[in-house]
Amino acid sequence: MELEKYNACSKAARKLIKADLVLKNASIVNVFTDRVEHGSVAIKNGIIVGIGDYEGEEELDISGKYVTSGFINSHLHLESTMVNPQVMIAEAAKHGTTTFIVDPHEAANVAGRDGIDYLLNQTKYSPAHVYVMIASCVPATPVDDNGVRLTARDMEYYVHNRRVLGLGEVMDTQSVINGDPEMNAKFELFDGKVKDGHAPGLTKEELAAYALAGVSTDHEGTSYEYVMQERSMGIVCLIREGSAARNLEAIVRGLVENNASTEGFCFCTDDRHIEDTIRDGDIDNCVRKAVSMGISPIAAVKMATIQPARCYGLRRTGAVAPGFDADIVVWDSLKDFNAQMVFYNGKRIDDMLTIQPATCPPQLLDTVHIAHVDPKKLVIDCGNKPFPVIRMIPGEILTERVDMVLPGTENGGIFVPNDKICKIASFERHHYTGKVGVGAVCDFGIRGGAIASSVSHDSHNIIAIGDNDEDILLAVKELERTHGGYTVVEHGQVFETLELPIMGLISDRDQGYVSEKVRRMTVKAHEMGVPKDMEPFVTLSFMGLPVIPEIRCIPRGIFSVTDWKILT
Amino acid sequence: MELEKYNACSKAARKLIKADLVLKNASIVNVFTDRVEHGSVAIKNGIIVGIGDYEGEEELDISGKYVTSGFINSHLHLESTMVNPQVMIAEAAKHGTTTFIVDPHEAANVAGRDGIDYLLNQTKYSPAHVYVMIASCVPATPVDDNGVRLTARDMEYYVHNRRVLGLGEVMDTQSVINGDPEMNAKFELFDGKVKDGHAPGLTKEELAAYALAGVSTDHEGTSYEYVMQERSMGIVCLIREGSAARNLEAIVRGLVENNASTEGFCFCTDDRHIEDTIRDGDIDNCVRKAVSMGISPIAAVKMATIQPARCYGLRRTGAVAPGFDADIVVWDSLKDFNAQMVFYNGKRIDDMLTIQPATCPPQLLDTVHIAHVDPKKLVIDCGNKPFPVIRMIPGEILTERVDMVLPGTENGGIFVPNDKICKIASFERHHYTGKVGVGAVCDFGIRGGAIASSVSHDSHNIIAIGDNDEDILLAVKELERTHGGYTVVEHGQVFETLELPIMGLISDRDQGYVSEKVRRMTVKAHEMGVPKDMEPFVTLSFMGLPVIPEIRCIPRGIFSVTDWKILT
Repeated sequence: MELEKYNACSKAARKLIKADLVLKNASIVNVFTDRVEHGSVAIKNGIIVGIGDYEGEEELDISGKYVTSGFINSHLHLESTMVNPQVMIAEAAKHGTTTFIVDPHEAANVAGRDGIDYLLNQTKYSPAHVYVMIASCVPATPVDDNGVRLTARDMEYYVHNRRVLGLGEVMDTQSVINGDPEMNAKFELFDGKVKDGHAPGLTKEELAAYALAGVSTDHEGTSYEYVMQERSMGIVCLIREGSAARNLEAIVRGLVENNASTEGFCFCTDDRHIEDTIRDGDIDNCVRKAVSMGISPIAAVKMATIQPARCYGLRRTGAVAPGFDADIVVWDSLKDFNAQMVFYNGKRIDDMLTIQPATCPPQLLDTVHIAHVDPKKLVIDCGNKPFPVIRMIPGEILTERVDMVLPGTENGGIFVPNDKICKIASFERHHYTGKVGVGAVCDFGIRGGAIASSVSHDSHNIIAIGDNDEDILLAVKELERTHGGYTVVEHGQVFETLELPIMGLISDRDQGYVSEKVRRMTVKAHEMGVPKDMEPFVTLSFMGLPVIPEIRCIPRGIFSVTDWKILT
Repeated sequence: MELEKYNACSKAARKLIKADLVLKNASIVNVFTDRVEHGSVAIKNGIIVGIGDYEGEEELDISGKYVTSGFINSHLHLESTMVNPQVMIAEAAKHGTTTFIVDPHEAANVAGRDGIDYLLNQTKYSPAHVYVMIASCVPATPVDDNGVRLTARDMEYYVHNRRVLGLGEVMDTQSVINGDPEMNAKFELFDGKVKDGHAPGLTKEELAAYALAGVSTDHEGTSYEYVMQERSMGIVCLIREGSAARNLEAIVRGLVENNASTEGFCFCTDDRHIEDTIRDGDIDNCVRKAVSMGISPIAAVKMATIQPARCYGLRRTGAVAPGFDADIVVWDSLKDFNAQMVFYNGKRIDDMLTIQPATCPPQLLDTVHIAHVDPKKLVIDCGNKPFPVIRMIPGEILTERVDMVLPGTENGGIFVPNDKICKIASFERHHYTGKVGVGAVCDFGIRGGAIASSVSHDSHNIIAIGDNDEDILLAVKELERTHGGYTVVEHGQVFETLELPIMGLISDRDQGYVSEKVRRMTVKAHEMGVPKDMEPFVTLSFMGLPVIPEIRCIPRGIFSVTDWKILT
């Protein structure tokens, strides 16, 4: 700490001068002693200087209320909101989250370091601690056609950035355990720092090989048994409660039933819609749920505060104690966890949140580069032979491969979509390569048009599903015009487009605008035949993700994740 | 991890190749899940690669035995053994300690960086992890006359040394909380690293000011209430069980009685005689005692392993899990904790310990530089006035000030020691300054001679107690001849001298030689009148320590710690 600041804090701690702010008569959760203490919290220069009997220039009586450190969201992707990265932070901060550990995986896959810098810059003056893990898998796999390849050498630039805590989720587990030299170089670069994992479904032996590479965390655990396997190897479990992937209940039930230690567990949201955050909260939602299921309130608070702080090496975050940042939440109770006041560095933030976007560099507004598409490339002429069709599994992002004779091809003709089987296509959009992968998808159901998206994990090419080539091509054209977005095309006309001009991922408009467009387009897609229980654009955005089984559409063709090869 | 090494480990983890060594059928304490697991521990290239069902080039069946990670001694001074620093490590390693966090406070006070380097070099090839905390208080206080002043600037040299973990025990608490710029510079230098504390008897407010400076640990806590005060501020408690200072019982009793969490507690020995280590053990002694008092064996093992590892940022130490160093102890039971086998980096060390001292730089063999002492300087001529006498408190290193008229001075004569009151003198020995402090000490009891020592905390000047000036001066002369040591002089003749030529602190002979000399000299001192329950040389070595209340003898004179001033 800078000396002048320290001296003021030290004097305030010793009551030689008044504190700036004192929260009087608080019930304070002490994460070091596992007790609730009663006293006043003294804050000077944004730092907690003492707990006890203090006087301050400003005093707030919070009798009957509970105080904890601000919560920590240990893993999330801000791009998923499709609005300015500050919006999610502002909303979550109102719910008591004051530290965010952000993985700019999507931005990096489109724009490399420019994308990471965009996230860093937009959140630089956020009323919260926003730390960044450097995306490790850009591209995510060797079969991906993404915007920029990010090498260990490119990452050196970030190693000494104080807001960078380590290496982002390492989803390319095979490169790790097979000792790929480039992956190893990334691990070496972040030696001594945190390496976030991403390790669904590894065998115990693979997990051991993964752990011994130095992976520190995982947020992909979905069962208690699996996460305890990881815990036995020292991997910290970031319990995920996102919008789609919700793992809290299964894991917490296991912890409670087995009376297991909650050391080594934290909470995160990974991908969470902003509407869910506004309605149900962020990490407070996790804590509330965990407590309702039988975790002790103090243990749950530790999972949300000191445990992630220690995991990520944040020495002055995560506790209400002298020397810690005055990130403080006043709660109504340790059951309901409704935030009454939220402080970041000693300043109220829950009532003063306005978003001021930082400037977006022009190159991030021009990332959709599609070569002219010869319509013939969309034709599927496979003879009277079975074709590997992508089948949606309802409520999951998993897909299933179904080999079937496509409609129209029974007598050697070309594929003609029907009510059951649509056409899917993925258009490379970063480097005008002209690569187009074309296939068929079962149970998506759209009729009389197409939908398309430039949000398409993890490479964010343009992915489209429709029942005719003309509408698919028009949808792609439309997204070229808007430099990315979501679009719905019907009978040769654009019905609606949500423009996402920033990297093809993020809007330059506000949350209301984005929500309303998504709502209208979703209604339309359902009218056009997409099953009511399926979110058309979210589902679409995962159809090109070659790390989740079983079969995907990428610009190189139809890809079998299971066999790890292009099928057509 | 270096790639080639990783690849071998990864393959062994996945059973594609055999491990080097497998400990079969072990009962393994898992510090992450708080469970005892049954299985085999596979080791490759000195790293633990997996727990489960493995085969190895070498296999040891340890059915019925328990396995933990090697224990960590979180704070100790190797100089206190007076023999080569490797000796204590070798002895403690036999008892299952494989990581030592060493504070070279004594060596640094005599020889600055040369002294620290001596410790680093001597332990470089030890069969254990030996880390160093850089001594922060050299000299310990502004009134000390030590060998070398160590500034923040001098310490820069160590910041990037991988064996240096942070700043050593900061005993000058007042400089910290009053914001002394030089102390602040040391804290800034080790920003993000551990700062060991040393904070006996601070008020709650002082402790808050001390904690907010960034102090991470304390090993001076003697009561449960005091350490819980520290814990509430996040300070890690290193429970000390040394030879003289034994705090385990009081703290552990409090933990057990209050059913308190043992998170944030570790064990250390601080200053421990090697004979005690050989007889009763090192950290195993702490664990055994804690378990016998009611701490659960797994909690006690965590206090000895993963907790100190995490506190000091040692990411690959402290657990039996993939990726951790294969520092492993096989125990007979989780009650008796008798080490059966000890491995360091996968190699047995308990049966192969021979000491090979590294070369000692010549300047460390010539550190006793005493100016000629005019005998008149030893005369105390205080008239018939009360003199501030140092009174020993039996069994403590605390002293008490007693103002009394000295024998011989009742009628204006000079002080003549008797059975009850001896003369004490401290001779500056680093820079020929000629400073001599002279006073009187009550209840030391030596008659017909003098004893002297160049081990004299913290500045290690020559301190002597005797009943006549001639023998005191002869003792000093003798220690000048031997470049430091312990000596006993009787009736004008040197009875015996233990030579400590390395910095005046350490012998160049073996442990047997040193022990035998100390034994003979102690017997003699007791024969000459020192109370039987007092260790003459240990007691003598603390008589010049101006940080422990209440009154001390230093080269500048008789010093009141309470009033922080020279009295005579």
